[in-house]
Amino acid sequence: MSATTKRALVTGASGFIGSHLVRHLRQSGCQVGVLARPGAIQKLTSDPNIDLVFRYDGPTTDVVAAVGEMHPDIVFHLASLVLSQHTPEQIPDLIQSNILFGTQLLEAMRLGHVSRIVSTGTSWQHFSGASFNPVNLYASTKQAFDDILRYYTEVSGFRAISLKLFDSYGPGDTRRKVLRQLIEAVKTGQVMELSPGAQILDLVHVNDICRAFLHAAHLVEMQQQPGLADYGVSGSQHRTLREVAGIVEGAAGKPLHAVWGARDYREREVMVPWDGPRLPGWEPNISLAEGVRAILDDEMRQSNDPKPAEPKPV
Amino acid sequence: MSATTKRALVTGASGFIGSHLVRHLRQSGCQVGVLARPGAIQKLTSDPNIDLVFRYDGPTTDVVAAVGEMHPDIVFHLASLVLSQHTPEQIPDLIQSNILFGTQLLEAMRLGHVSRIVSTGTSWQHFSGASFNPVNLYASTKQAFDDILRYYTEVSGFRAISLKLFDSYGPGDTRRKVLRQLIEAVKTGQVMELSPGAQILDLVHVNDICRAFLHAAHLVEMQQQPGLADYGVSGSQHRTLREVAGIVEGAAGKPLHAVWGARDYREREVMVPWDGPRLPGWEPNISLAEGVRAILDDEMRQSNDPKPAEPKPV
Repeated sequence: MSATTKRALVTGASGFIGSHLVRHLRQSGCQVGVLARPGAIQKLTSDPNIDLVFRYDGPTTDVVAAVGEMHPDIVFHLASLVLSQHTPEQIPDLIQSNILFGTQLLEAMRLGHVSRIVSTGTSWQHFSGASFNPVNLYASTKQAFDDILRYYTEVSGFRAISLKLFDSYGPGDTRRKVLRQLIEAVKTGQVMELSPGAQILDLVHVNDICRAFLHAAHLVEMQQQPGLADYGVSGSQHRTLREVAGIVEGAAGKPLHAVWGARDYREREVMVPWDGPRLPGWEPNISLAEGVRAILDDEMRQSNDPKPAEPKPV
Repeated sequence: MSATTKRALVTGASGFIGSHLVRHLRQSGCQVGVLARPGAIQKLTSDPNIDLVFRYDGPTTDVVAAVGEMHPDIVFHLASLVLSQHTPEQIPDLIQSNILFGTQLLEAMRLGHVSRIVSTGTSWQHFSGASFNPVNLYASTKQAFDDILRYYTEVSGFRAISLKLFDSYGPGDTRRKVLRQLIEAVKTGQVMELSPGAQILDLVHVNDICRAFLHAAHLVEMQQQPGLADYGVSGSQHRTLREVAGIVEGAAGKPLHAVWGARDYREREVMVPWDGPRLPGWEPNISLAEGVRAILDDEMRQSNDPKPAEPKPV
């Protein structure tokens, strides 16, 4: 991002990465607006890193009003319904969240003469390293949105980067991802049933991911020609699930009671993550060992902290 | 299609091509079911070429019920909202009609163990001959649906062909397309304001298009491996709009009062149609001259026919 204060509109700000991103944006001197569903408004309104909260209730006019009122220099589009597997009942939500809302956002940008966007894709668009082969229906909706974004770059002159995320982790992560489950199991001593564990994970710390978003915004800002580029936000260390478990054990100084092979691999388990082009000019700074150790140290300190002592009566 | 009677489920059966397709399917010995919105039910119920009419009111369960009840051998997915240009208000309908409904259909096929589908794309996905460059937002929603179809071919073993249509014409066409407007102008003698007219049209007769759908179904039926192929249903004669006007004049035996250049070309006017791979084993039979002449002869005969005489009293 440039040195001058910028106005950034963020979708998905109540999610794990989004909630970190608004802090990074604020720290870089941005004015931060968010566009969110009614259920997330209260949480976002009390976030000190957010200046403006706009409500999205479904109609296109909500999005047009938000973009028109704020007139952001750039949009960070992170809102998404992430489903590794879907049920038939989830299909309308999946299309609404991952395609319709994004299209309304692009249309509102067109009408409001806002042409710069950093959007969010997934490495799951590239099963077996293919240029496109979706791991799941969620990944195909991400590809579908890229097609629609392509229309706006071609016809309305948008400058866009789609960042393809891998596994993310960091402090404050409440998602039931495998790293979180490993940490819990090590802390509690509970037995954990796992697949054979030979799948390679590409885990990236949320702070590195946020730096990637800010760097992508800088690239989009410098971009002279309309167009859509897509890049991976991949870590520098590939570790098997078994190796990741070892890192968690070492960081905690406690053993994991794992039953490897008690579960099958998932259907279309990604054994080797996509190895596509990484965002140029960016690389991750935080090793998995460092990141996991910091999480554990932090959580252990919090649980060991005695309650603040009552002030003694004078 | 094979010699044995087949069960075919058609979406978009109330549209121009769909209404011709159900007749072709019936003539080839198929049992024909259609899945349609409430507004189209009455018209379809009275169509003698249709055996089963299923109602679609929005929920996925409607589609699951229809596919489960009929258990078709193949699905012809023609339903679409076609917009050469869109307004912001039309975005939810566009996503609903062109992506959500189709995804519900694919999911219902997966649940009902139906794996063969002929879907409908557009040559507009290929502006300037690109592998993908949408002429309009409509074309990008078609590409988006292909991405979702790709998921079902990869994960659920679907056999699929997506037919990319060009301009279509034929009897009973009530759409306000340029060929129809030329015919009306020649018949009425009204002055018609037109662009300079150098854009090349690729007009295909609806009977040829229906033969392409039946041939694609045959290919899908023979297909041993899962997968999605896409082919153009292109005509064999490229004619500029001015040449097309000449054909209409000749067929009617009347002059067109045209003001060429009174209008600008459309934004992103397709000057040269996409020249991608045509559906193998199929080619159009009906020349534009023959097709237009038949339409005009037919319409003139209808307008000249005297009312049937009253039967004379004995």
